[in-house]
Amino acid sequence: MQKSQLPIGIFDSGLGGLTVVRQIIKQLPYEDILYFGDLARLPYGIKSQNQIIKFSRDNAEFLMRLGIKALVIGCNSSASAIGFGFKQSFHFPVIDVIEPAVRKAAVSTQNQKIGIIGTQATIESGAYEKKIRTFDRQIKTFVKACPLFVPMVEEGRFRDKVAREAIKGYLSFFKKSGIDTLILGCTHYPLLKSSIQKFMGKKIKIIDSAEPTTFLLKDILLKHRLQKTGSTRGVLRLYLSDQPRHFLRLGERFLGQKLRFVESVQMKERSNERRWETCQI
Amino acid sequence: MQKSQLPIGIFDSGLGGLTVVRQIIKQLPYEDILYFGDLARLPYGIKSQNQIIKFSRDNAEFLMRLGIKALVIGCNSSASAIGFGFKQSFHFPVIDVIEPAVRKAAVSTQNQKIGIIGTQATIESGAYEKKIRTFDRQIKTFVKACPLFVPMVEEGRFRDKVAREAIKGYLSFFKKSGIDTLILGCTHYPLLKSSIQKFMGKKIKIIDSAEPTTFLLKDILLKHRLQKTGSTRGVLRLYLSDQPRHFLRLGERFLGQKLRFVESVQMKERSNERRWETCQI
Repeated sequence: MQKSQLPIGIFDSGLGGLTVVRQIIKQLPYEDILYFGDLARLPYGIKSQNQIIKFSRDNAEFLMRLGIKALVIGCNSSASAIGFGFKQSFHFPVIDVIEPAVRKAAVSTQNQKIGIIGTQATIESGAYEKKIRTFDRQIKTFVKACPLFVPMVEEGRFRDKVAREAIKGYLSFFKKSGIDTLILGCTHYPLLKSSIQKFMGKKIKIIDSAEPTTFLLKDILLKHRLQKTGSTRGVLRLYLSDQPRHFLRLGERFLGQKLRFVESVQMKERSNERRWETCQI
Repeated sequence: MQKSQLPIGIFDSGLGGLTVVRQIIKQLPYEDILYFGDLARLPYGIKSQNQIIKFSRDNAEFLMRLGIKALVIGCNSSASAIGFGFKQSFHFPVIDVIEPAVRKAAVSTQNQKIGIIGTQATIESGAYEKKIRTFDRQIKTFVKACPLFVPMVEEGRFRDKVAREAIKGYLSFFKKSGIDTLILGCTHYPLLKSSIQKFMGKKIKIIDSAEPTTFLLKDILLKHRLQKTGSTRGVLRLYLSDQPRHFLRLGERFLGQKLRFVESVQMKERSNERRWETCQI
């Protein structure tokens, strides 16, 4: 098979990466997508950097074995834990969700004050602040971990009273700090975007990584002549490491399409090797 | 070493099992305790039954290899997933947190209406309702999964506005159903007990499993002549499968004592065997 005809791989701990898939389907409708959701070990954001790196490698290698032409790390906790060496260790382009969002935020801010929200792991890693400094050392950053947002989204709570109180509790800090741009540093958070915008007010620019990440992906595919040719719409295949019922219900509602091609995977160990393998649900 | 001098083992996915440890220290102050917290794979309550059984076996076998005289399954999601065969497969008594709480609730109810709250996995398993029916078929049960309670507790939110709204959201249902007894079917929930009691009102009897489970443990140790002799206070040793900083901060606050003996464990695979092994943090 020609390399350009291979699918794009993307992984996340759960549902969040679908916010990126949604954009890929919109902007690159002919591409096939393989999505890996590590439901068995979610959430990543409260785990240590070492655990997250191990998990990320398991997932990337699984998609690599299936055959992909590019990999999107659709999980900020992963993206903030892995280093440059991780990306270099694969023979296809690997892009993550941090740099595209930072680039967009740095262009977008007028008063050089950017807020960043994310999981405990992402915020503690300091990955966003470091990346912002490489663009513009004048920008002041304000950060806050919001550990309840992922379980809230996974439960489908986007705008109820609990969601509103949690948003108020976590984000009041940013109102005081005078930011004009807020990065949603977790791919789950776009599902809370309208509630967050409502709380923060219309003047605050809210950046999620799905759109800029997809632009970067498109750019890289074009540059490497990897864009799929043909005119049949691409297929989305899902591989999930635990029972998918809950994931499918929310995922379908969110993507606005039936998730038809779903397989279960299980961690298998043989001699010195451990890897995800597909299995019967 | 005499068998009675061995420690008691207990495992949970995270912090919750410490509610049981607190009672054990209070009621059996001379016993040594080995606590395993599977921070790397928490929370269990949103995972499938098969995953939880696998995790539970890993954890029980780790404690078994260290040498224990009895095992407490300090996690309701585990207790509701495993069967009788699991308990029988060890050469020491294995007790879980479900039966003692059910027994106490069945005695406690006056109007034969019992409410049960727990994680998604515990509620979906129907373990509490089945156990209640074995005691008294006349009792009506009302159940509700409360997926946000574990992450709330792990974040230290016991009585803030978010906690109050979540409690109201999940528990209003029980006010309408007219229960007089509510079982906290998750070892994390006792940390929310006073907020739950406040919302439900003083007339509702709230049952957590820590106290009745410890009574049962005491009873079994006496019956098997396994109670530790001597007059030096027991030692609590912790084994955690991910970085313990957050766990220790909340755990110390909760247990009211410094957690001094803490070791990290890591999953190791060799040929056809996989197991937790202690390692450097």
